[in-house]
Amino acid sequence: MAILIRGGTVVNADKSWRADVLCESGVIQAVGENLDAPAGATVIDAGGQYVMPGGIDPHTHMELPFMGTTASDDFYTGTAAGLAGGTTSIIDFVIPSPKQPLMDAFREWRGWAEKAAADYGFHVAVTWWDDSVHRDMGLLVNEHGVSSFKHFMAYKNAIMADDEILVNSFARSLELGALPTVHAENGELVFQLQRQLLARGFTGPEAHPLSRPPEVEGEAANRAIRIAQVLGVPVYIVHVSAKDALEAIARARSEGQRVFGEVLAGHLVIDESVYRDPDWTRAAAHVMSPPFRTKEHRDALWRGLQGGLLHTTATDHCVFCASQKAMGRNDFTRIPNGCGGVEDRMAVLWDQGVNTGRLTPNEFVRVTSTNAAQIFNLYPRKGTVAAGADADLVVWDPQATRTISVKTHHQNVDFNVFEGMTVRGVPTHTVSQGELVWANGDLRARRGAGRYLKRPANPGYLQASRLAKSLKETQPVRREGDASNQAGGPG
Amino acid sequence: MAILIRGGTVVNADKSWRADVLCESGVIQAVGENLDAPAGATVIDAGGQYVMPGGIDPHTHMELPFMGTTASDDFYTGTAAGLAGGTTSIIDFVIPSPKQPLMDAFREWRGWAEKAAADYGFHVAVTWWDDSVHRDMGLLVNEHGVSSFKHFMAYKNAIMADDEILVNSFARSLELGALPTVHAENGELVFQLQRQLLARGFTGPEAHPLSRPPEVEGEAANRAIRIAQVLGVPVYIVHVSAKDALEAIARARSEGQRVFGEVLAGHLVIDESVYRDPDWTRAAAHVMSPPFRTKEHRDALWRGLQGGLLHTTATDHCVFCASQKAMGRNDFTRIPNGCGGVEDRMAVLWDQGVNTGRLTPNEFVRVTSTNAAQIFNLYPRKGTVAAGADADLVVWDPQATRTISVKTHHQNVDFNVFEGMTVRGVPTHTVSQGELVWANGDLRARRGAGRYLKRPANPGYLQASRLAKSLKETQPVRREGDASNQAGGPG
Amino acid sequence: MAILIRGGTVVNADKSWRADVLCESGVIQAVGENLDAPAGATVIDAGGQYVMPGGIDPHTHMELPFMGTTASDDFYTGTAAGLAGGTTSIIDFVIPSPKQPLMDAFREWRGWAEKAAADYGFHVAVTWWDDSVHRDMGLLVNEHGVSSFKHFMAYKNAIMADDEILVNSFARSLELGALPTVHAENGELVFQLQRQLLARGFTGPEAHPLSRPPEVEGEAANRAIRIAQVLGVPVYIVHVSAKDALEAIARARSEGQRVFGEVLAGHLVIDESVYRDPDWTRAAAHVMSPPFRTKEHRDALWRGLQGGLLHTTATDHCVFCASQKAMGRNDFTRIPNGCGGVEDRMAVLWDQGVNTGRLTPNEFVRVTSTNAAQIFNLYPRKGTVAAGADADLVVWDPQATRTISVKTHHQNVDFNVFEGMTVRGVPTHTVSQGELVWANGDLRARRGAGRYLKRPANPGYLQASRLAKSLKETQPVRREGDASNQAGGPG
Amino acid sequence: MAILIRGGTVVNADKSWRADVLCESGVIQAVGENLDAPAGATVIDAGGQYVMPGGIDPHTHMELPFMGTTASDDFYTGTAAGLAGGTTSIIDFVIPSPKQPLMDAFREWRGWAEKAAADYGFHVAVTWWDDSVHRDMGLLVNEHGVSSFKHFMAYKNAIMADDEILVNSFARSLELGALPTVHAENGELVFQLQRQLLARGFTGPEAHPLSRPPEVEGEAANRAIRIAQVLGVPVYIVHVSAKDALEAIARARSEGQRVFGEVLAGHLVIDESVYRDPDWTRAAAHVMSPPFRTKEHRDALWRGLQGGLLHTTATDHCVFCASQKAMGRNDFTRIPNGCGGVEDRMAVLWDQGVNTGRLTPNEFVRVTSTNAAQIFNLYPRKGTVAAGADADLVVWDPQATRTISVKTHHQNVDFNVFEGMTVRGVPTHTVSQGELVWANGDLRARRGAGRYLKRPANPGYLQASRLAKSLKETQPVRREGDASNQAGGPG
Repeated sequence: MAILIRGGTVVNADKSWRADVLCESGVIQAVGENLDAPAGATVIDAGGQYVMPGGIDPHTHMELPFMGTTASDDFYTGTAAGLAGGTTSIIDFVIPSPKQPLMDAFREWRGWAEKAAADYGFHVAVTWWDDSVHRDMGLLVNEHGVSSFKHFMAYKNAIMADDEILVNSFARSLELGALPTVHAENGELVFQLQRQLLARGFTGPEAHPLSRPPEVEGEAANRAIRIAQVLGVPVYIVHVSAKDALEAIARARSEGQRVFGEVLAGHLVIDESVYRDPDWTRAAAHVMSPPFRTKEHRDALWRGLQGGLLHTTATDHCVFCASQKAMGRNDFTRIPNGCGGVEDRMAVLWDQGVNTGRLTPNEFVRVTSTNAAQIFNLYPRKGTVAAGADADLVVWDPQATRTISVKTHHQNVDFNVFEGMTVRGVPTHTVSQGELVWANGDLRARRGAGRYLKRPANPGYLQASRLAKSLKETQPVRREGDASNQAGGPG
Repeated sequence: MAILIRGGTVVNADKSWRADVLCESGVIQAVGENLDAPAGATVIDAGGQYVMPGGIDPHTHMELPFMGTTASDDFYTGTAAGLAGGTTSIIDFVIPSPKQPLMDAFREWRGWAEKAAADYGFHVAVTWWDDSVHRDMGLLVNEHGVSSFKHFMAYKNAIMADDEILVNSFARSLELGALPTVHAENGELVFQLQRQLLARGFTGPEAHPLSRPPEVEGEAANRAIRIAQVLGVPVYIVHVSAKDALEAIARARSEGQRVFGEVLAGHLVIDESVYRDPDWTRAAAHVMSPPFRTKEHRDALWRGLQGGLLHTTATDHCVFCASQKAMGRNDFTRIPNGCGGVEDRMAVLWDQGVNTGRLTPNEFVRVTSTNAAQIFNLYPRKGTVAAGADADLVVWDPQATRTISVKTHHQNVDFNVFEGMTVRGVPTHTVSQGELVWANGDLRARRGAGRYLKRPANPGYLQASRLAKSLKETQPVRREGDASNQAGGPG
Repeated sequence: MAILIRGGTVVNADKSWRADVLCESGVIQAVGENLDAPAGATVIDAGGQYVMPGGIDPHTHMELPFMGTTASDDFYTGTAAGLAGGTTSIIDFVIPSPKQPLMDAFREWRGWAEKAAADYGFHVAVTWWDDSVHRDMGLLVNEHGVSSFKHFMAYKNAIMADDEILVNSFARSLELGALPTVHAENGELVFQLQRQLLARGFTGPEAHPLSRPPEVEGEAANRAIRIAQVLGVPVYIVHVSAKDALEAIARARSEGQRVFGEVLAGHLVIDESVYRDPDWTRAAAHVMSPPFRTKEHRDALWRGLQGGLLHTTATDHCVFCASQKAMGRNDFTRIPNGCGGVEDRMAVLWDQGVNTGRLTPNEFVRVTSTNAAQIFNLYPRKGTVAAGADADLVVWDPQATRTISVKTHHQNVDFNVFEGMTVRGVPTHTVSQGELVWANGDLRARRGAGRYLKRPANPGYLQASRLAKSLKETQPVRREGDASNQAGGPG
Repeated sequence: MAILIRGGTVVNADKSWRADVLCESGVIQAVGENLDAPAGATVIDAGGQYVMPGGIDPHTHMELPFMGTTASDDFYTGTAAGLAGGTTSIIDFVIPSPKQPLMDAFREWRGWAEKAAADYGFHVAVTWWDDSVHRDMGLLVNEHGVSSFKHFMAYKNAIMADDEILVNSFARSLELGALPTVHAENGELVFQLQRQLLARGFTGPEAHPLSRPPEVEGEAANRAIRIAQVLGVPVYIVHVSAKDALEAIARARSEGQRVFGEVLAGHLVIDESVYRDPDWTRAAAHVMSPPFRTKEHRDALWRGLQGGLLHTTATDHCVFCASQKAMGRNDFTRIPNGCGGVEDRMAVLWDQGVNTGRLTPNEFVRVTSTNAAQIFNLYPRKGTVAAGADADLVVWDPQATRTISVKTHHQNVDFNVFEGMTVRGVPTHTVSQGELVWANGDLRARRGAGRYLKRPANPGYLQASRLAKSLKETQPVRREGDASNQAGGPG
């Protein structure tokens, strides 16, 4: 059944203009003035509102088995909550255990995700290395639409990737035309600091940020970036939370390196003082890695988003209820790491970004949707309001307000890190695959409606990087005057 | 009469796809697969070629009266040469003499420009300050479609803007929703160095770069940027040639400031050793400001272009023949400053940018056309291939080659700074206002066909900057505990 | 009469060791173990204490005529207060009015200073420019022992130095072997911001820091440094208060430029919130330029001091009583600028520097005395405990405490910016010119005992800078292959 | 027997002055004017010359067993060559094989070093980790005068230290009051690049620098510095050769971290083009790690030395003859790494540093001797000309010249990387332990005369770092409002 969104201002990353939008068969059929509604079409009055591409959250962990428990939002509840907030696609993570074949893990996650209410893709983590990993990366890219790989530089004795894994996997990614991504924290330092803090008697959540100071993130970000630079491959840094990491990105970009940065809605607005909340449960509810930071870092993150050092906004949505967090009652290192936000990201970004003059509405679209689509090669199927694109849309009322609360949210968890925050700018309607799934507070998500998104390899920027590398390697390294070796290379 | 460009790959800043392009009545009517040619339409076979938005050169000086003579390319010959190279719009400069009313100068330049063969707009220079300048800036913005102002920080005793002018004009620009731009060189230092060099007996072109070292540019760029930052106004740095200036831009952007940078095709590829050419005429032909730099700077410029520190590419096209350059035979400070390139910019950028893997074709479009259109508020009329946009297009053959030479160029000058450079990637056809003006070497430019481009004020980024500033100013500055002065502001 | 300081640990910039110190005839006669006391010598028991070179405060303004009034500490009361705090030398400023001959001003200040209780030197400000200034700079350097010049980049319409003055005076300084110093704030921006704030109704001290934000200082510091770099002359930035300025210093030093930075004790420990004190008088008492800053800047200053970006600590001692500050009751721009500290600098630095592990005792000596002596060419007469040096010493008890207060200080002013701060580490004895002038709370300063310190030109670092410049200038600038112009220089 | 050096200008790090120097019993007895020569004293006429502290080379590898062979200069020939060049002390390295007990290796090296002609100390490398290493570090510091440890971040599958070793050893060093030092190159990347180059057929020395690009060094330097920062321990980066590493040092120092940098004489003056020498033997003779770099890096190193980012100059003296280098004839990764210079460092530094105005003579002393003595806790026994210090001196003729050549050098190797360089400024006399060991070309080095230098732990800067860390750790981490946990620490 068709949907006609009438009378709004369409906002894309590159421009805003008054136009109607007609959706049918899951696809945007037309964007233009005074479109006629087909018979039987649902007509949405978007007068005074913005019509934007649905949000893409490129970093979620639905029903993740982690630290001895499983994240409480599954692929259905999590994606449904996203729809309520205007997010119509997620990219989640397949995380093989060390020694687990990548393809096995991939199939496992594909199974779990079948219940999703919105479209989803997968990054696959490289947590160990041998020839089978090398081979499975090829299979994933060439046959299964996985074109990005994740590397955890933290979590020693679990899924941590050391330099050997990073170097091998980054080099393989370039070959395949896939994008390496990293969780940047020096796991060895975290491990040492955790031990020191526990030894000094610090067992509560207040020790969590002390065990992961900004320098730990800055070091790892710089390392991953430099490895990528030397190998000639672009790299994407997930959840940048510290100005130290931003500075590493800035340096690399000013050297012409293709580095992308992601920032979480939570890191933009939440203060590290939450870890000193006298209520253990509230403090523990904020335990995630990297931790929330001071204002100095938050200010830097906003600036990075404005200045083009950070490209995407995400949530790292990975929620655990109070009873799960309680596993770490006597030892903060055992508190399951993770916080939520897939439902609130867009509103938080609009309220703190657009309403403050930090971002234009076009830039809002860019950092909540378009950039993610372009970087992860879903564009222009996703990330733009244009004829031919998937009909994933959000109608946005810039004057309406909402107070975020666990009492009203749709996420399957008993805490909300944005509790009590009143935002101006809310989604009145969400369209996913051409269907109206959210309308003025009515959530009509459908279990299993979501489709797996195959993401092709070799986006333009990766082709350019490979071209640059191959040209560099075929430059002769002349041994001056040595007639027997003029090309400097193999004889 | 209609034109149908068939079988090419359309390249916009955000995506590339196979599509035909239909132009009629000066406008792109349709972009899509298998379009039918209207009766009588000219059909261009673009098989194996790219179809891109026509180039925009945001920095030219046609028939500029300068240093006692007048630039030899006038608005007709200069814009015609641009069309031969795929550039379909220029933004030129109105430069009032000190004390000359801005409106008088504006009318003068408008008259000269009537002969242009392609569309053109104007920046207006603020070279002095009094209440009439303040008033005329308002007239220019509100009634004449001028939405950017230029400031020369060099050329002491002529058109140099000191801090007082900069501060007043930047503040006024923000009020008006216009963008201040600067030529960043510390004119006082240049003046001192020129005197020192002449006193030491250096009278030839080899002294020119010594009188304008990179630090002179870096200082001025930083100063302009900081002034803009304090006043809350975006700023655009023209012809960035030195890494010192790039670093100032990088710092500011990492602090969230809206700073845009422009780079000239010449600065990307020409080495400063040209000033030491034993042939005085050749050396003098390269005299422009800022001067050409060493490889270290060129590398930095490319990196800045790749990393988002530089946004537009231009030429500062301002040509003088050998007989004019000879005015400075005995004193390098009297050599008319200026070089050409409006015809060659696109090809040089493609050859050295896309063919090397530094830029993707989409990025090429962004830095040769789209960004200029967005920054100077001509978008989406210019800068994109889309239905409804002006039919300004270039059809690009990525395999064809051309050797640049004064013997074959269409610019009205007896020298070409790119002489002898063989580029791969050339425009086979240029469409301007829906007319075919360049076709396989046949230039059909028409005198007076160009239209003056009114550029509205208040692009989105300027609105956001003003919003941010106004919010900041209405924040209370509380004198803590002082009941009589709670708002900290006016009583 | 001789003084023997027995049993202490002598602390110099390079080392610490147990030794006695014998002073006679104004000079240190011996430093060694088990020295014998001459007949009649005063013996000071320094057991458990440190014996250090007397402090040098390179930035004070005693009895300065400024903003319509005169600083309340004169050369006698100010230097006496310094002695009570362990500071045995100051370098004050001669500040000619625009158009006032430099030599006239110099003589005026020399007269005022005759009442000083401790040794003193003078920087001379260059506030305007003509040939007489050029000539008088030579006289001051060659005949009067002035080897540093000051430039105010702020205070528009008064003593502000524009680029023309800076360039001319810096170039002249290099010729003479003198060190240029700058007060780095962009005066044009300050002027504009003051007008904007007053226009918006902000008339109180809370507006003072808003009119001089950190960027205003960063810009000016960078400009002065770049001008110096281009001209090849070292430069010294007084009262660095903002990280923006520090970054400019860091950049320059990492490029090998000889830049020195000074920080005030007050800027290291006082928060900008003082300007929002509900008590107008207290708020106004803190008005000085640059203003006090946020913690982020203070942290950066400490780091700069630790990392070698800042070399000296000073006070900018320039005090006005409440009745004087009241001149700006209705207009913050009329509040006389200035705060005190000559008495407290050493103790504040020790307490917050050495007691926290930020500085070693040797580094304390370096930044309170030795570096100032070396930079301003008083070393090794001042700045070290060594035989042959002036007997200017302080005996320091690292365990004793003192609470700073206007009730007990010796400064001639009714306010103390460090009021209530309890410091651990206090001077028990001060020796000036071999006389005991401060002993366990007993101040024995003598009016007129201070001597004018002639400071020779051409310290080693200036000689090296001149050598580097001259070598660079005599490098041939070859016009390649041009037989008629092989040397590239004068024919 | 006494030596009186008469009529020279004594140059220390802090000052220069005319004085005679009297040495007896291995110690400087007096420094002053018109000293009398004791009976039988050797009198050296130093008129027109400088008398400076003997050089300290803090980075040498005499008779190192490495890559299947042994360095050809042993402790005797190497230290003797140093004396001929004015270097009177070295600090060499004990390098245990993985799993070899540290104490065993230490004893082995002590045995080899007994033949040394000049004083020497040892750094000990930490190449693996277990409890015995932890314990032996304690023994070495507390009983054997080793107060610095070395970590190789390169040389995978051999002596490479991974993050786990770095973190453990740095933390242990801080406990012990010892200074960690690092060879900063990412060994995993080097390994990967070597494999790639060999696979592409590059087997010659021209591939050596390609396998160790600057980024590889920059990454490792940054990592080591950040690990040290997080743990609160100072760190020393050996042989900084790339601006990437310098920038890491600059960032850390501007953040107040105590980071020291060392630069090799060779890296300051030799160009990477040497690896493309058509003569394999000459190219291979330059193979060392990190490799020589381009001018851009050399310029940056000089600037770092001037600006206080680099503190010491060394040589990494580790020489192999042509027959040894030939082991890598078919595989550049098997060429024994190492070059010489212990004899030439001082002269190269003077010629290229002092003669160019980059360094003052005082700064020359600082970077060739004083800083090394202070950082490695040999000061003031070494590193200064002062009564009581070891009589290690060099008399320097600033006008004399010498052409460096393998034909005349005293190093036991058949190649000299400075071959043919004519330096102005040469040592006419060297005094070691109060004996004249080099006099106008006559080398009187004595086998076994050198003494092992015990270097105490806990220099001032390490004490301050420990104090800062302990204060930071005892700050309460308050859980706000939580009465049961007010101190935030152990319950």
